[in-house]
Amino acid sequence: MTIASAGDLVELIDRDARNFFFRLTPGQRLETHRGIFKHDDLIGQIYGTEVFSHLNHGFFLITPSIADLITDLKRNSQIIFPKDIGLILMKLNVRPGMTVVEAGTGSGGLTLALANAVGSTGRVISYDSRQDMQNLARRNLEQVGLLDRVTFKLRDIKDGFDETDTEALFLDMNNPYDYTAQAYRALRGGGFFGSLAPTANQVSDLLVALRRERFFFPEVIEILLRHYKTVPDRLRPVDRMVAHTGFLIFARPVMITSAVVQEETAEEAEEGET
Amino acid sequence: MTIASAGDLVELIDRDARNFFFRLTPGQRLETHRGIFKHDDLIGQIYGTEVFSHLNHGFFLITPSIADLITDLKRNSQIIFPKDIGLILMKLNVRPGMTVVEAGTGSGGLTLALANAVGSTGRVISYDSRQDMQNLARRNLEQVGLLDRVTFKLRDIKDGFDETDTEALFLDMNNPYDYTAQAYRALRGGGFFGSLAPTANQVSDLLVALRRERFFFPEVIEILLRHYKTVPDRLRPVDRMVAHTGFLIFARPVMITSAVVQEETAEEAEEGET
Amino acid sequence: MTIASAGDLVELIDRDARNFFFRLTPGQRLETHRGIFKHDDLIGQIYGTEVFSHLNHGFFLITPSIADLITDLKRNSQIIFPKDIGLILMKLNVRPGMTVVEAGTGSGGLTLALANAVGSTGRVISYDSRQDMQNLARRNLEQVGLLDRVTFKLRDIKDGFDETDTEALFLDMNNPYDYTAQAYRALRGGGFFGSLAPTANQVSDLLVALRRERFFFPEVIEILLRHYKTVPDRLRPVDRMVAHTGFLIFARPVMITSAVVQEETAEEAEEGET
Amino acid sequence: MTIASAGDLVELIDRDARNFFFRLTPGQRLETHRGIFKHDDLIGQIYGTEVFSHLNHGFFLITPSIADLITDLKRNSQIIFPKDIGLILMKLNVRPGMTVVEAGTGSGGLTLALANAVGSTGRVISYDSRQDMQNLARRNLEQVGLLDRVTFKLRDIKDGFDETDTEALFLDMNNPYDYTAQAYRALRGGGFFGSLAPTANQVSDLLVALRRERFFFPEVIEILLRHYKTVPDRLRPVDRMVAHTGFLIFARPVMITSAVVQEETAEEAEEGET
Repeated sequence: MTIASAGDLVELIDRDARNFFFRLTPGQRLETHRGIFKHDDLIGQIYGTEVFSHLNHGFFLITPSIADLITDLKRNSQIIFPKDIGLILMKLNVRPGMTVVEAGTGSGGLTLALANAVGSTGRVISYDSRQDMQNLARRNLEQVGLLDRVTFKLRDIKDGFDETDTEALFLDMNNPYDYTAQAYRALRGGGFFGSLAPTANQVSDLLVALRRERFFFPEVIEILLRHYKTVPDRLRPVDRMVAHTGFLIFARPVMITSAVVQEETAEEAEEGET
Repeated sequence: MTIASAGDLVELIDRDARNFFFRLTPGQRLETHRGIFKHDDLIGQIYGTEVFSHLNHGFFLITPSIADLITDLKRNSQIIFPKDIGLILMKLNVRPGMTVVEAGTGSGGLTLALANAVGSTGRVISYDSRQDMQNLARRNLEQVGLLDRVTFKLRDIKDGFDETDTEALFLDMNNPYDYTAQAYRALRGGGFFGSLAPTANQVSDLLVALRRERFFFPEVIEILLRHYKTVPDRLRPVDRMVAHTGFLIFARPVMITSAVVQEETAEEAEEGET
Repeated sequence: MTIASAGDLVELIDRDARNFFFRLTPGQRLETHRGIFKHDDLIGQIYGTEVFSHLNHGFFLITPSIADLITDLKRNSQIIFPKDIGLILMKLNVRPGMTVVEAGTGSGGLTLALANAVGSTGRVISYDSRQDMQNLARRNLEQVGLLDRVTFKLRDIKDGFDETDTEALFLDMNNPYDYTAQAYRALRGGGFFGSLAPTANQVSDLLVALRRERFFFPEVIEILLRHYKTVPDRLRPVDRMVAHTGFLIFARPVMITSAVVQEETAEEAEEGET
Repeated sequence: MTIASAGDLVELIDRDARNFFFRLTPGQRLETHRGIFKHDDLIGQIYGTEVFSHLNHGFFLITPSIADLITDLKRNSQIIFPKDIGLILMKLNVRPGMTVVEAGTGSGGLTLALANAVGSTGRVISYDSRQDMQNLARRNLEQVGLLDRVTFKLRDIKDGFDETDTEALFLDMNNPYDYTAQAYRALRGGGFFGSLAPTANQVSDLLVALRRERFFFPEVIEILLRHYKTVPDRLRPVDRMVAHTGFLIFARPVMITSAVVQEETAEEAEEGET
């Protein structure tokens, strides 16, 4: 049995899936429309237990997942969805101890997922030219306790990244095609490049820029996530779904001396099962 | 610049995306249909460089991603696809230092991804009742250098898991609905449960079993991955795609005293954007 | 140039795609939140012209498509979507002069599409056990001027259909699996059977019933329709979409003397490109 | 009971879904790898019956659907799929007695579906600049007995269509954006325009051309068709599917005097449920 302790980031969720995320802090209280909880009454409880507000409404005390936390982030920009983040982590080969560079920071959703995945021995370096964005991201990272893994840089990346020889770099910008040269210089040979773009036109422009800047083996991927109603004897997809968040683009920077043009090397891989 | 060293797990990939994964070992050679490489000639090269076989065919020397390695695994069972693994890692809240339990081992694809994500301070405990499966998985883990993070247990889980109070557990079985009681006892309250099932019937049966065993907040999710042709001025989805790998099911074990039946708590969340 | 005449079924649609469907009737008026139109002012206009309300708000005078009319129907039941109807018409081989049987009538959406497709020389026979449903459908058919092609029968089909040797029959019921024997007797050998079911469980039950009743060559199909934003330089799918309306099931009744069980004959066709 | 007669277009299909389409002709024979059928032995059989070859292999004698016939067409170009044709018929408001114009003819797949839908009182006018294409389409139409409903014109449509005031027109060309002016002149005001384009770039170009030529209310739609395995107790989508055939574009020509630019009128309709 695991006991909820002061300082834990916890979730209270009732049977109708209404939920609250917060950090257990002695002396504080959580006020909900279904009643009040004193943190001190929650500290010491066994995780998974149903606890009751002063109005006797039950909530389960559980640990939030990173996916839950990202979905719940305060944001002032479009956030990258957990469905996309999962694939980004796989494709950028993110793992404990690694350093990853991203631009821009945005609301810090991807930053948070990266910081979580690289662990306490890894590092995330996050560029953004907007102070308000980075402030928000900083607060979001702080709330989940991962701020110390992130270096924020308030900078327009058109002048380049400080880093070189980076293993993985992600561009979440409106115009990623304007920064492929900078990304190339920041990455190690054969490193992992990723980007997200909402429109087909951006994808085309980025593919052109990537080819010009010696990024090979491009992939353009879209993820459709479908939820099902969870009634066992009436199993069916839910009525409506998110139809589009963005196209994910991945590629690998390589070193070539001659100006050999890469001609659609990805054609063969096109039915690749990823 | 990063230099390829003896012992590195590397990938050679030519401009047509034909590729090879292997570990650099002094004295060894790689024979391809496009010529031979001596490992000693590759050791010391800069990553990202184009290297040439004795037939003068060029390959880029790069680092493989975990996604690439999983796709390339030797297998004698259906493997879990990277697209699904990415979401599983997010939903099970997998992170460095964590312990995760899975059954069955299968060919070790998910095992590998979990071992990669929990890092050197984490642990994966993997059950399977078939010796041949675990042998294959062991070899696969060894090849990528992650074997020391995994404890294999050759055991039918119908008698239960050794572990209790586990944070996350994944069932990749033909009949996951037969093991929900065992999973419940192995998990901590509010822990993270996941499973994959190919058919709608299995999903229905699992949802019934989960509800009976006090797993709440079920989610059933399907991921459709769509690749695009990467020709900038003729951007379009590829002609054919993987239409189905399996349904992903997630839920959280909770502790309840009364026999209150949970009625479709997920209904409200059904259009949730994950 | 085609002129709008009294009696025409027309659509007025403004530049923001707000629209109205109605039949041009001398002496009548259309009141909108953007001003009033006298039908007499519209009669005699050229189709495609922009006409202006008494508030000087412009609307284009055009002809509605059958798809538009179905989407706009008054309904008190779930309607079959145009995306599904298009495939149903193809799969049931519906064409001018043909007779088609359907049950139930519902709000008459499919009835309308069938009546439109069979033409003035064809016939739709539509069963429903609820008077209120058929009354609504009758009004809907009357409004679009296709009522004379439809025979409504107020009847529970558990006692069977009057018709035999029918070329095509569609079941739009909650429990289509309870009426496969009746459908078999109503259809000619090798005729076209179709049904729609929202849940996977219904599909399974229907497949069992179809096999038992000598319906061969079953197909289960789902259509996902994706709309794109129509901004040329920011082309992208819309953010949200209808994720599910129902599964479409098609099969062909055949005559067999022996009790040979059909074993998954559709396996080979499973990747069929329809 | 319906009896197979000389002159009928029929299908023989065995329990493994291997099938043959042909017209019953006295004196002829069908040779299959499972044995021979004399047409004279089939003439007079009841539809739906299982008939046996001289090798005693059983086939069911049924009527092919239009969708089946299109899928089976001899082709020397990419064919429009039944899934797309179904929606095209709905969106172009095709119905008995109507005249529809298309360019190009291609292998005649859409021509066939249009000819089927407009009936004996309707007309299809089909343009193509390639003699070999129209010859093939003519043979395909003749085989299904619908040739008399089609007027073929061997002509490059850059010089325009002969027709004016047409109700519906479909462009199936590589460069539909080059012919929107011609299409506008051929269509009646508020008529139905449709086109199919495989790439996102073509769609963007066509949207620009349509706006310039006074086509309003554009829609860009993609249809994903998903087949399921038809095993009742193991219901699941098939493993692989057609991921892309083309984008369907629809719009309506209108008459405007002033040069008012239409600004994204479709935005509101973007989540429209078609």
